[in-house]
Amino acid sequence: MNGIFITFEGPDGAGKTTQLKKLAEELKKQGHDILVTREPGGTAISDQIRSIILDPVNKEMVDQAEVLLYAASRAQHVHQLILPALAAGRVVLCDRFIDASVAYQAYGLGVDVDMVKAISRYASSGLQATRTYILDVPVEVSLARLHHRASGTGENAQQLDRIEQKNVDYHSRVREGFHQIAADHPERVRVVNANRNEEEIAKEIWMDCNRLLEEHISG
Amino acid sequence: MNGIFITFEGPDGAGKTTQLKKLAEELKKQGHDILVTREPGGTAISDQIRSIILDPVNKEMVDQAEVLLYAASRAQHVHQLILPALAAGRVVLCDRFIDASVAYQAYGLGVDVDMVKAISRYASSGLQATRTYILDVPVEVSLARLHHRASGTGENAQQLDRIEQKNVDYHSRVREGFHQIAADHPERVRVVNANRNEEEIAKEIWMDCNRLLEEHISG
Repeated sequence: MNGIFITFEGPDGAGKTTQLKKLAEELKKQGHDILVTREPGGTAISDQIRSIILDPVNKEMVDQAEVLLYAASRAQHVHQLILPALAAGRVVLCDRFIDASVAYQAYGLGVDVDMVKAISRYASSGLQATRTYILDVPVEVSLARLHHRASGTGENAQQLDRIEQKNVDYHSRVREGFHQIAADHPERVRVVNANRNEEEIAKEIWMDCNRLLEEHISG
Repeated sequence: MNGIFITFEGPDGAGKTTQLKKLAEELKKQGHDILVTREPGGTAISDQIRSIILDPVNKEMVDQAEVLLYAASRAQHVHQLILPALAAGRVVLCDRFIDASVAYQAYGLGVDVDMVKAISRYASSGLQATRTYILDVPVEVSLARLHHRASGTGENAQQLDRIEQKNVDYHSRVREGFHQIAADHPERVRVVNANRNEEEIAKEIWMDCNRLLEEHISG
């Protein structure tokens, strides 16, 4: 693997997608060959799986099915898209990855952490991110942003999906999960305070990423 | 668990569905409360997953995704449908279960047997069949029956699905897998020679099942 694999994590409403786009623009300006993708999804098969996971109709989904569907989507995504891009030396930016499974399913749902990690490892053939940015905001802030989004009108109006509808306790456990992951992997993970304006956040991420790229080239 | 869980295994074209229906009719005549179901599928969510697995368009599916999708479908099926039916004392007849994952994915695709079993155990919370009938026919026979089905006209005409299109070597490995499973679990599994007329096969299965029911009631 010659490319660099950067993942963005954190709750919906933390601004992951915005920050990922801003970083992608900077990288393009610098002449990097980049691939922007997301989980669950990223390939045609993964997108089919994504639809099942997020469909608000599928309220009866049991935890085991949710864990395994995320892993299936990841398996396809990693092998069909991410690994070939990294082998070609590209910079891959991915909206959510294994840490999301650990935070949402292990910490959020209470599924055994080691089981979630073992299944994720199998799905991704052991691939890990080079750098992970966890966008951190208090639960009230991310939920308020989501509700604002959901109550919008016109093109911005969106229904909350099945995951977003879960309760505040769940989202608090998920946030704790992200903090634990950061504590467990200080070399890989950066926690970014995302309760600030977009430009400040983007600048912090870009400075760190720039350093990472320089190390990668000189290494 | 007070009910009895009976699974039918073997290649497509071995006559599983026909034999399952015949056994279901006998059981109904005897006044048993039965549930007939199948994998992958059996619930609305499992059926959505089944469509992804079997769609001939999804040719790029990697082995890991296939293993995990079968497991996800099973997780939903077991927890939403099978376990409640067994708890209610019903006789559950299921077309394919964990042995199919072991035979097709571990022996057929070459995925690590222990990994397939571990993922299946997680998906099914450890549920195992009370009795499993493996309908055994030579590979040439099952494939010939499938091709006959696929070349039919009118309502019987069906396209071969993605799994059925795989090659003969693969199907030979799958058959060996079923034989190995039978050797590993002599108390649970019965291998039934399915290269005979339907009535003979049905009679053999019914005699065994009848004995099983008597043991279950007296036990």
